[in-house]
Amino acid sequence: MSHLNLNPQSIAIVGASHTPGKVGYNTLRNILVSRYKGAVYPVNPKGGEILGLECYSSLLEIKNKIEMAVITTPAVLVPSVIADCAKKNVETAVVISSGFSEVGRPDLEKELLKVKGDVRIIGPNALGIKNPWGPLDAAFGPLDATFSYVMPKKGGIGLISQSGALLLGMAHLANEEAIGLSLIVSVGNKIDVDDADLIDYFNEDPHTKVIAIYLEQVNNGDRFMKAAKRSKKPIVAVKAGRSEAGLRATASHTGAMGGSDKIYDSAFRQAGIIRAFSVTELFDYANTLALMPKARNSRIGIVTNGGGLGITITDACESLGLEVPQPSPETLKRLRDLIPKEIKPGNPADLGGLANFSDCREAGKALIEDNKIGGVIMALVQTGLTKLEEYTSATIEVARRGKELGKPTIGCWMGGKQIRDLREILAESEVPIYPSVSRAAKVMAMLCSCYTK
Amino acid sequence: MSHLNLNPQSIAIVGASHTPGKVGYNTLRNILVSRYKGAVYPVNPKGGEILGLECYSSLLEIKNKIEMAVITTPAVLVPSVIADCAKKNVETAVVISSGFSEVGRPDLEKELLKVKGDVRIIGPNALGIKNPWGPLDAAFGPLDATFSYVMPKKGGIGLISQSGALLLGMAHLANEEAIGLSLIVSVGNKIDVDDADLIDYFNEDPHTKVIAIYLEQVNNGDRFMKAAKRSKKPIVAVKAGRSEAGLRATASHTGAMGGSDKIYDSAFRQAGIIRAFSVTELFDYANTLALMPKARNSRIGIVTNGGGLGITITDACESLGLEVPQPSPETLKRLRDLIPKEIKPGNPADLGGLANFSDCREAGKALIEDNKIGGVIMALVQTGLTKLEEYTSATIEVARRGKELGKPTIGCWMGGKQIRDLREILAESEVPIYPSVSRAAKVMAMLCSCYTK
Repeated sequence: MSHLNLNPQSIAIVGASHTPGKVGYNTLRNILVSRYKGAVYPVNPKGGEILGLECYSSLLEIKNKIEMAVITTPAVLVPSVIADCAKKNVETAVVISSGFSEVGRPDLEKELLKVKGDVRIIGPNALGIKNPWGPLDAAFGPLDATFSYVMPKKGGIGLISQSGALLLGMAHLANEEAIGLSLIVSVGNKIDVDDADLIDYFNEDPHTKVIAIYLEQVNNGDRFMKAAKRSKKPIVAVKAGRSEAGLRATASHTGAMGGSDKIYDSAFRQAGIIRAFSVTELFDYANTLALMPKARNSRIGIVTNGGGLGITITDACESLGLEVPQPSPETLKRLRDLIPKEIKPGNPADLGGLANFSDCREAGKALIEDNKIGGVIMALVQTGLTKLEEYTSATIEVARRGKELGKPTIGCWMGGKQIRDLREILAESEVPIYPSVSRAAKVMAMLCSCYTK
Repeated sequence: MSHLNLNPQSIAIVGASHTPGKVGYNTLRNILVSRYKGAVYPVNPKGGEILGLECYSSLLEIKNKIEMAVITTPAVLVPSVIADCAKKNVETAVVISSGFSEVGRPDLEKELLKVKGDVRIIGPNALGIKNPWGPLDAAFGPLDATFSYVMPKKGGIGLISQSGALLLGMAHLANEEAIGLSLIVSVGNKIDVDDADLIDYFNEDPHTKVIAIYLEQVNNGDRFMKAAKRSKKPIVAVKAGRSEAGLRATASHTGAMGGSDKIYDSAFRQAGIIRAFSVTELFDYANTLALMPKARNSRIGIVTNGGGLGITITDACESLGLEVPQPSPETLKRLRDLIPKEIKPGNPADLGGLANFSDCREAGKALIEDNKIGGVIMALVQTGLTKLEEYTSATIEVARRGKELGKPTIGCWMGGKQIRDLREILAESEVPIYPSVSRAAKVMAMLCSCYTK
């Protein structure tokens, strides 16, 4: 079987359209707009030129090697296109066309499988793929007049989604939260390439550090479990349709049968898959795993400039089974010099409102270097005194020291617009940062593997 | 006893300073910058002019009536200033000065109480107050060079905080989340005006619809319980220091003794106080209660443009004890015309990616007008197709219809920057909107009063 290839050197877009707004036009436009560096061949039997490129009448007319075909023709034509792909030794076909089992035409899917030969098929009824590292955007949105194009930032999360709409929403959300992705794949009806294949693919992909999956149904449980078990990279998954009403909605969304949530739960546990219960959690967990080592133990150090924030984080940590212990006497001695005299040094280490770069960095280092402590949360509240940039840079240095020691550092930044801007700086420096105490505590608990819902 | 007055027509700032950066300068500056319309009298025995205002040598030298005195002098001088307030019939004194029981000088607090007469004292060691409706900012931050001044938007949440830093952080956060406040009060050491007084005050305040409290300790449980029980407006509270480590941190933060979390929990329940477990929850609950009626029952309707989003919201609702039932046959008939034929109409009502203003509005109305349904969540995911503005305006109309019927409408908007901008439009139209399924489901569960942690 041909190798699945999601970083192709050449692409044919079969069903390329002359009409802006049509899927076959917009997908070609996205490939070009994404600054893709490989060769692009539009295929349309009517010929002519689209977006400055000469059309080929068929795949077979193209002389050069084609690594990927993106297909947007009507469903009834897709089997013959796939047969052409097989003849032409195309490695990967991304079938964006809909009109298959999701509308009661599973027969068309069987035809695809019959003629596909060595071709690996993504879809049909897939939204496409987005590869920020390529760069390559071979997905069909947007169709809106304002062209709200979205390409995620480069990063370490390989994302698989069974929902096309959610996939685009997640791409927007990732950018909004300053989270980097290595690749997004919309799997559509999963008649050939499924989650198991992609888990294997992401394990070979040098940019992917964590695999994140939004999943409504696993078709082949055995293959899925084996791939998950052999994965050397952590997997986080949302299985949607947990509740009965959710399952009912799943059935009418993708036609998936779902299956009892308990089965998924125990399967995930067996395969070492970390379960998330929403897209927010999926990103929070995956992002943290992409950037930080696991915690050494569940005893957490907290540094803050706001007493109240320190207390609420402490509460959130302890409610998830983490400990926020008194640090060693040695650490307390180091903290004493950094903390205003009217505040008692301890954990959380409350630096007071006026602390500067060095106070914050040294307090973070004192805690993360303490043998008792398994990981540190740097918590900042934006007051009228807070030296936001100083805390941010200090936190990056604490995180660097933590990585040397194999201990995670998480940021929890509470405030307004300026905070949002600083998040991007932290993200670039690979420090995960969350705007709420519960999200920060949850990811830390996940790193301590002691968090179970 | 004089009436507590947090919307004064005249203010003296005692301890006004000539030196920018000092608390006594910055507080005066904030009063002026906040576009306060009343009379302002700086008091400084050295005389001279500050920010264009002539200083008075003492409170008693001012001829006109003074409704509020804001005090920033050294702690040892505060008793004599309070004595002057009493002589001058000042109604409310906001004591920003620190150096009292929090640093081992409870004797100074006793002196204040001895000389205060009819004056109501907020603090000492308070950050001050911010009144967006006044407008009046009588709080001392910021001290930073860039003057990151923060005044919350006008709204219906009356906020009380025992933590000064957190209070400023919450003001920034409220603006970032497009949440409006009626007033913020930093209570400091609470020697006179406490949470109970402010609950009574907010019940009389025409702008306040909900009372939100960040609390580390209640000094007088009996007074607090009585005020909470007689409150006609809902109260949401975070009691920080739930865990043992959190309690330890509380003791070193405000010197508060805390007390067993179970006692607070059952007291809150008795008094009908809604308990939040973080500042995020505090705002989510308070904001929703300020804008929406309680749900009629716990059966929720969901409208969405993304199948996957609909399923995950359904899961989140059901995991909190809400139901997402099939709607009545009549409603299904109305939905049938609005939903693409390949999608089965139901609840969640999945409108597909291309739905427009009218589809979204009619689907929302169909569900909210269904007698089975107690409240509606309008959920939108930003894809390349989504008509963001159309959904937003449609959601506002659904919410309006819901209010007529006494049923709540919550938005759940998932995506990027454009989504954030639309949140402000929804906020202006008084529709609460949350960027995650769990937050949207949680507030709905709170409105159904079936959410218990």
